[in-house]
Amino acid sequence: MAKLWAGRFGADPSALLDKFNASITFDKKLWRYDILGSITHARMLERIGVLDSNELALIESGLQEIAREIEHGEFSFPIELEDIHMAIESALTSRIGEAGKKLHTARSRNDQVALDFRMYVLDSSVQIMSKILALIDTLLAIASKHTTTLLPGMTHLQHAQPVNFGFHLVAWCASLRRDVERLESLHTRNNLMPLGSGALAGTPYGNDREWISEQLGFRAPTLNAMDSVSDRDFALDLLYALAMLGMHISRMAEELVLWSSSEFGFIRLSDEYATGSSIMPQKKNPDVPELLRGKSGRLYGNLTRLLVVMKSLPLAYNKDTQEDKEAVFDSVETTLLSLEILQALCESMSIEKSAMLKATKMGHLSATDLADFLVQECGVAFREAHHITGRVIAYAESKSRDLSELSPKELESALRPLVQIQNLATLTSSLAKKLSLESSMQARKSLGGTSTKQTKSQIAALRSWAKKAHKHLPTLKAH
Amino acid sequence: MAKLWAGRFGADPSALLDKFNASITFDKKLWRYDILGSITHARMLERIGVLDSNELALIESGLQEIAREIEHGEFSFPIELEDIHMAIESALTSRIGEAGKKLHTARSRNDQVALDFRMYVLDSSVQIMSKILALIDTLLAIASKHTTTLLPGMTHLQHAQPVNFGFHLVAWCASLRRDVERLESLHTRNNLMPLGSGALAGTPYGNDREWISEQLGFRAPTLNAMDSVSDRDFALDLLYALAMLGMHISRMAEELVLWSSSEFGFIRLSDEYATGSSIMPQKKNPDVPELLRGKSGRLYGNLTRLLVVMKSLPLAYNKDTQEDKEAVFDSVETTLLSLEILQALCESMSIEKSAMLKATKMGHLSATDLADFLVQECGVAFREAHHITGRVIAYAESKSRDLSELSPKELESALRPLVQIQNLATLTSSLAKKLSLESSMQARKSLGGTSTKQTKSQIAALRSWAKKAHKHLPTLKAH
Amino acid sequence: MAKLWAGRFGADPSALLDKFNASITFDKKLWRYDILGSITHARMLERIGVLDSNELALIESGLQEIAREIEHGEFSFPIELEDIHMAIESALTSRIGEAGKKLHTARSRNDQVALDFRMYVLDSSVQIMSKILALIDTLLAIASKHTTTLLPGMTHLQHAQPVNFGFHLVAWCASLRRDVERLESLHTRNNLMPLGSGALAGTPYGNDREWISEQLGFRAPTLNAMDSVSDRDFALDLLYALAMLGMHISRMAEELVLWSSSEFGFIRLSDEYATGSSIMPQKKNPDVPELLRGKSGRLYGNLTRLLVVMKSLPLAYNKDTQEDKEAVFDSVETTLLSLEILQALCESMSIEKSAMLKATKMGHLSATDLADFLVQECGVAFREAHHITGRVIAYAESKSRDLSELSPKELESALRPLVQIQNLATLTSSLAKKLSLESSMQARKSLGGTSTKQTKSQIAALRSWAKKAHKHLPTLKAH
Amino acid sequence: MAKLWAGRFGADPSALLDKFNASITFDKKLWRYDILGSITHARMLERIGVLDSNELALIESGLQEIAREIEHGEFSFPIELEDIHMAIESALTSRIGEAGKKLHTARSRNDQVALDFRMYVLDSSVQIMSKILALIDTLLAIASKHTTTLLPGMTHLQHAQPVNFGFHLVAWCASLRRDVERLESLHTRNNLMPLGSGALAGTPYGNDREWISEQLGFRAPTLNAMDSVSDRDFALDLLYALAMLGMHISRMAEELVLWSSSEFGFIRLSDEYATGSSIMPQKKNPDVPELLRGKSGRLYGNLTRLLVVMKSLPLAYNKDTQEDKEAVFDSVETTLLSLEILQALCESMSIEKSAMLKATKMGHLSATDLADFLVQECGVAFREAHHITGRVIAYAESKSRDLSELSPKELESALRPLVQIQNLATLTSSLAKKLSLESSMQARKSLGGTSTKQTKSQIAALRSWAKKAHKHLPTLKAH
Repeated sequence: MAKLWAGRFGADPSALLDKFNASITFDKKLWRYDILGSITHARMLERIGVLDSNELALIESGLQEIAREIEHGEFSFPIELEDIHMAIESALTSRIGEAGKKLHTARSRNDQVALDFRMYVLDSSVQIMSKILALIDTLLAIASKHTTTLLPGMTHLQHAQPVNFGFHLVAWCASLRRDVERLESLHTRNNLMPLGSGALAGTPYGNDREWISEQLGFRAPTLNAMDSVSDRDFALDLLYALAMLGMHISRMAEELVLWSSSEFGFIRLSDEYATGSSIMPQKKNPDVPELLRGKSGRLYGNLTRLLVVMKSLPLAYNKDTQEDKEAVFDSVETTLLSLEILQALCESMSIEKSAMLKATKMGHLSATDLADFLVQECGVAFREAHHITGRVIAYAESKSRDLSELSPKELESALRPLVQIQNLATLTSSLAKKLSLESSMQARKSLGGTSTKQTKSQIAALRSWAKKAHKHLPTLKAH
Repeated sequence: MAKLWAGRFGADPSALLDKFNASITFDKKLWRYDILGSITHARMLERIGVLDSNELALIESGLQEIAREIEHGEFSFPIELEDIHMAIESALTSRIGEAGKKLHTARSRNDQVALDFRMYVLDSSVQIMSKILALIDTLLAIASKHTTTLLPGMTHLQHAQPVNFGFHLVAWCASLRRDVERLESLHTRNNLMPLGSGALAGTPYGNDREWISEQLGFRAPTLNAMDSVSDRDFALDLLYALAMLGMHISRMAEELVLWSSSEFGFIRLSDEYATGSSIMPQKKNPDVPELLRGKSGRLYGNLTRLLVVMKSLPLAYNKDTQEDKEAVFDSVETTLLSLEILQALCESMSIEKSAMLKATKMGHLSATDLADFLVQECGVAFREAHHITGRVIAYAESKSRDLSELSPKELESALRPLVQIQNLATLTSSLAKKLSLESSMQARKSLGGTSTKQTKSQIAALRSWAKKAHKHLPTLKAH
Repeated sequence: MAKLWAGRFGADPSALLDKFNASITFDKKLWRYDILGSITHARMLERIGVLDSNELALIESGLQEIAREIEHGEFSFPIELEDIHMAIESALTSRIGEAGKKLHTARSRNDQVALDFRMYVLDSSVQIMSKILALIDTLLAIASKHTTTLLPGMTHLQHAQPVNFGFHLVAWCASLRRDVERLESLHTRNNLMPLGSGALAGTPYGNDREWISEQLGFRAPTLNAMDSVSDRDFALDLLYALAMLGMHISRMAEELVLWSSSEFGFIRLSDEYATGSSIMPQKKNPDVPELLRGKSGRLYGNLTRLLVVMKSLPLAYNKDTQEDKEAVFDSVETTLLSLEILQALCESMSIEKSAMLKATKMGHLSATDLADFLVQECGVAFREAHHITGRVIAYAESKSRDLSELSPKELESALRPLVQIQNLATLTSSLAKKLSLESSMQARKSLGGTSTKQTKSQIAALRSWAKKAHKHLPTLKAH
Repeated sequence: MAKLWAGRFGADPSALLDKFNASITFDKKLWRYDILGSITHARMLERIGVLDSNELALIESGLQEIAREIEHGEFSFPIELEDIHMAIESALTSRIGEAGKKLHTARSRNDQVALDFRMYVLDSSVQIMSKILALIDTLLAIASKHTTTLLPGMTHLQHAQPVNFGFHLVAWCASLRRDVERLESLHTRNNLMPLGSGALAGTPYGNDREWISEQLGFRAPTLNAMDSVSDRDFALDLLYALAMLGMHISRMAEELVLWSSSEFGFIRLSDEYATGSSIMPQKKNPDVPELLRGKSGRLYGNLTRLLVVMKSLPLAYNKDTQEDKEAVFDSVETTLLSLEILQALCESMSIEKSAMLKATKMGHLSATDLADFLVQECGVAFREAHHITGRVIAYAESKSRDLSELSPKELESALRPLVQIQNLATLTSSLAKKLSLESSMQARKSLGGTSTKQTKSQIAALRSWAKKAHKHLPTLKAH
């Protein structure tokens, strides 16, 4: 099949070239944006007198017919047509004749693909923001039911201090919030309209780029034509944002895997979101969190892929850039599905409060409270208090007890040789209360802390933010 | 040397552990932020009654003395003290005694390092924005001198359409502008104050986090303590922004290498920014652009490094995170130096206008103008015009001439068999003018195009933006 | 559809789980290996008495029928069946009844997929080696025609010393040879048979693993069952080898792009392997080398992907590992196609000897020869000679001549003020000859040098190696 | 300071250039190899008559003096001298005069650095192999003491089947063995001698490259001069091998972190290899395994770094390549230290057998044994058996018992409704024995399985291999 660009070529391209070169097998995903862009371009051409109104009408109805066929799977994409742009233009011309041949006036495939792909990236970022907000909703709903559910807060995977489960989920949401903000910011930064940049230098047709930009809901036209066809920052920004989101999810997934192990037992996955073993009938495997964790590899790899492609490319357009799309499509689709299933999994899992509570009683989680007590009530310097506490714990271990379980009497025996306090006997009874796990959690009431009140206030703040974020989601360019 | 945390440990850490575990060999770079953070923390402790005013005075003067010693290289950082935080606290206590032991009240190393490192990242992003703006200034100054200097605009490294050199440099600046915007956005997003998060759950001391946040010029305190000690998004955001900047620089560097080759000869590097060969005396090597290009590897690698570290870490703090700093330090220092030398190199290189012009005459760069002429003046559909142009080029090549050099007569002979136009003879003289390279460049006057006027307007727009950006650079937290 | 593992589950898996969890959309590529593995496993089960000969016959013919259907596209892969293993086992059982249910005795999906995937990786590495050897053949055939074709050897993209084009292509082949050796070594290292490892701990059936290993052409059974189901080194080794091959190809591709530019003009791509522009009719774009260069991104990204997946996974099998296959499939298919088209492109391109020769005359390429002459014939120390040569070049430039074009007289005038040699006039005539480009190239006759003789000897050595490598290609496990 | 290459340059390099360009701040690590290479090169020059024996003697003693000074920290490396090669040559000439200026005859910095760096890479790979073998020794010593120590073998972090702890450690060793094999293979593949390649095209001096190759213990000289100065495969091969080793270590580290948590408690780290908390006195943190896990980021990042640098570099030498060294130095030093501390940590940790045993009793780990029993003793097809087992487990759970703890009577009650077996009552007593955890572990006696006998045989096989590997470690080129 003769190429639209074949003018001066003596020989047809080899079949191998078609196979290697064509992007249509994947860039057909852009069809919706290609047709939207072409219709808007045609309208602009009519405004500046390149097309007459009849030609415009033919082009519009031709393109809409093609859109319907693609939507219903009735359109074929022959590989010889290289890419979605050529496939649609060629189909249009074969249907409406001469007018079709005028559509490509005052543009190039270089700015055309820059427009299509950018709209895909911008819309995908909106869809993903929306799904993250839904996930946050779910997590906050769970969190608000568990602001007094104790579990061991961990550092180094060692029991550190008691926290409530709601507080832990709020930490997840805080990272997801940054993901939304990152997407918002890349949407704003890249919401610029490249069409009319031509091959690399602009066009001599007086394209009305402001008008197109407005029609398609962009912030403004891009500044410089050469940059417009060379730039893939918008795609990289999305790949990075999704790698970060994937990283955050991998951390949640790691915790879900840990929590559903026999050793932890903090949650139970519902049967709908767990799987069995082909040979071990007793198994209930957390395949979903494991896969969610593993998807980070794909998201990181896609970012690396495009960074490498762009490295040291001279301006302006180079064919290497065609390697941009599959990575983005894969990251977007992976992310949408991941968010959906993570939400469903969290909604359907059961929280094992008693297992959490039992675990909290291991590891002297109120040790810091003892040190803080010595500082606050007995005037001991913190570094001293830290030291003394270590010795009291040794005492508790010698009794096979957790620090939180020592009686006032026992506390007194432990402390007397270590610190000179007059009213020690009086203090130890209030101390014993402070060392209870519930007290310890509630004591951390500084802004951002784990106390129930602070946790609730964090939930409220996130809800209020999420509501606003949802309201200000950018409009999709195509639906 | 006994560790501050050694209370319950039966044996001293091995020397090997010290060597492997210590971060002080690199995190001492944070000293300025550690001292700033500690002084502010101490003032807050005094406000909430944990310290009295004498203690505060001792701590402040002790820390300032230590700062002076570090500044003058008179402070030693023993590896047994593990990290900058312990080294400074330990020195303080050995100087001022008991008051020093109180400084660590109501904080943990987990929130302390989160604060120090975040301030370093935020300040570095400001310093880098500032240097990018300086580079843009230089590039725009050169660009404004070359808005009529023709050179071949390229796609696929093939001559495509004539552009002016100023326009090409504006394309560079457009990518650098996005780098500044990316840094601005990460600064805003991450300008939140983590101190007071304690180990992971907040503190029971009623830390006034709002006050500290304000003192240190943050937007607000962080939301959730557990997230605050687990989060390294701020560092990753910077690593990504610098990988992108490095990618953009690698593209400029590739062009600088090409342009300074014998084959291109578009620029000559000054002797101050070029190097020679140890065995080939005739060589003048573009080492600087080559190294700039190669630095992208390091910047990408540092991003990969921290993404990998964070993958699937459970909350909250884990020691793995200590691996965050060297990557960031390296990317920041590499970038600052790269920007500085790129600016100096551009300032000192000479632009070889005649070589650029000569090159522009190869490759029929005004071919698109012929096609556009056929569309605009003769009513030929673009796809037809594209085809006809291919044939006229074949004609020019048969005459060993560039399309831009064909006379009206020759254009007439070439076109007559290809297109039916009544007044062809009349048109070809205006056509011949349009096909001159200067006309071709000036014809691309759509918004963002390469015409001198458009280029100047792009330069003006960038200058105005840069001025504003410079004015609104965030304040440094430490100097 | 009920899962084979569903025994204890109260609820069916959600549709979302099926979609997220299933690998069958991609792992069906392994069908050939799955059936080969199952037939061999069944034969072994018969040998150890788990199956009788009737059962074995039923299983074999059932599996062969399924193979035929898949081969002819008549087999459907329902997503509910999760993976290729379940799909085939389930189809088998529905055809042959009870005997089918016995096939999974003494194995697990964990060792089954380890076997299938490993065979795919090993066979792919053989296919790729074979294609690299074919490419080397083509390159050496071209090289052997061009052992006296001069072109500028470059360092820093600056003209350095004259070389012949054959020599340059031999440099390409030297890197491809390492790729073959890397593939050979990974094939040997990983040619170990995992089946019989069960889920992670081996089986109680007395599987005859030695026999299966031999039947499938492995070197030996794997050592340890737990490692066998956890290990994906074989896949990573291939991903790395292909990233390296892709890196080498990106370097060749960069040179092909440069060489086909107007500035260089060293080669012309054939019309069959070049493309045109949608708006610039004069363009002939090197899309193929550009894409080949860009494919490095994908190959690097796939390596990153799996490295990230495997990071910090506890033993033994985790679902994350399912993310291993798509990366490998993509790298293998990309590589096979890339090698094929690179070979075709090289075979069909034309070598522009006169352009190469013309370029060689720019840049004083025989400068090192002058320095070497001063050392060898005049007893000047090398560092002195380097300095003097610099001055002679300045002289040549003042005459607008290349060093290789200076007459004996001119050389005498240039050298006389710089060096004290008695018989200078006599020497300069032999010197002038030495400074010709042809002499300069032929002078580099040390082992590995560019002289025609040395180049031919390198070609011969590579041919002899390639012949042996071809002869010793490992046998494919499936065809 | 005037550069050795400064001949034709009109202006001195700027200080900024020196700072940006110089590699001496890091490549001084190569001094030992640079001096070794120079001495050998000088000896060769004397053999081919370029130097006389006096000159050689001066050079040798001059270089040895410099070596001694560097060794004792008495040698200064001024940044103006750019790199280790220039620093040493320049010092030599200032000491011995004219003879020093002859040393650089018949070589270039391009082949010189290729030689030095390659020797560093080859020697480092030997040192690392040696440390891995030492670690394997330690692990096998522990393994051989624990071939009957039961712990839950896990898949998906869920209890799967009982294994012994020795078997688990053998799995670790199996991956380390591949690391050694990978290093062996890269050593052999890259053990080729590049010196004498000159700048890129060989030399006209008749360098005796075979002799140098033999003197320095290489397999042979490299094939092609242009490839020799362009090739960095040897460095990448090492970076990849260390990324893989780092990945394996990150998996072991993950398990060490899990095992030392309260939830698992399978091991206790010694106080010498653990750390405390600055505010939580009760903590004992597994910093070492955490950092070991995090180091994977650095090792992956270094690989990415150099892959990116090499992408699309044209031949031959480009300055970008200078970015190769720091990545390799960092990966080598990180790895050597990591191996050392991992070995020390394993040697000093205590194995908590009772905690392991207790955990083994959770999760019905002998479920597969029940299924296997039904297949082997009762003729039930495996898929049926899998189903029945699921029901028996439900029975056990209803009794709050582990499957391994059911009495023959209970097994009979559970099985009777599910399967038709005549002598069920007789069988259940032998079944009950089979379902004990010890029996279950011992039953997996297929080759590579977890039974004590098989584990011992794996240990023996690894020991015998390691002994051979140690014996055949390649010789170091410098000490």
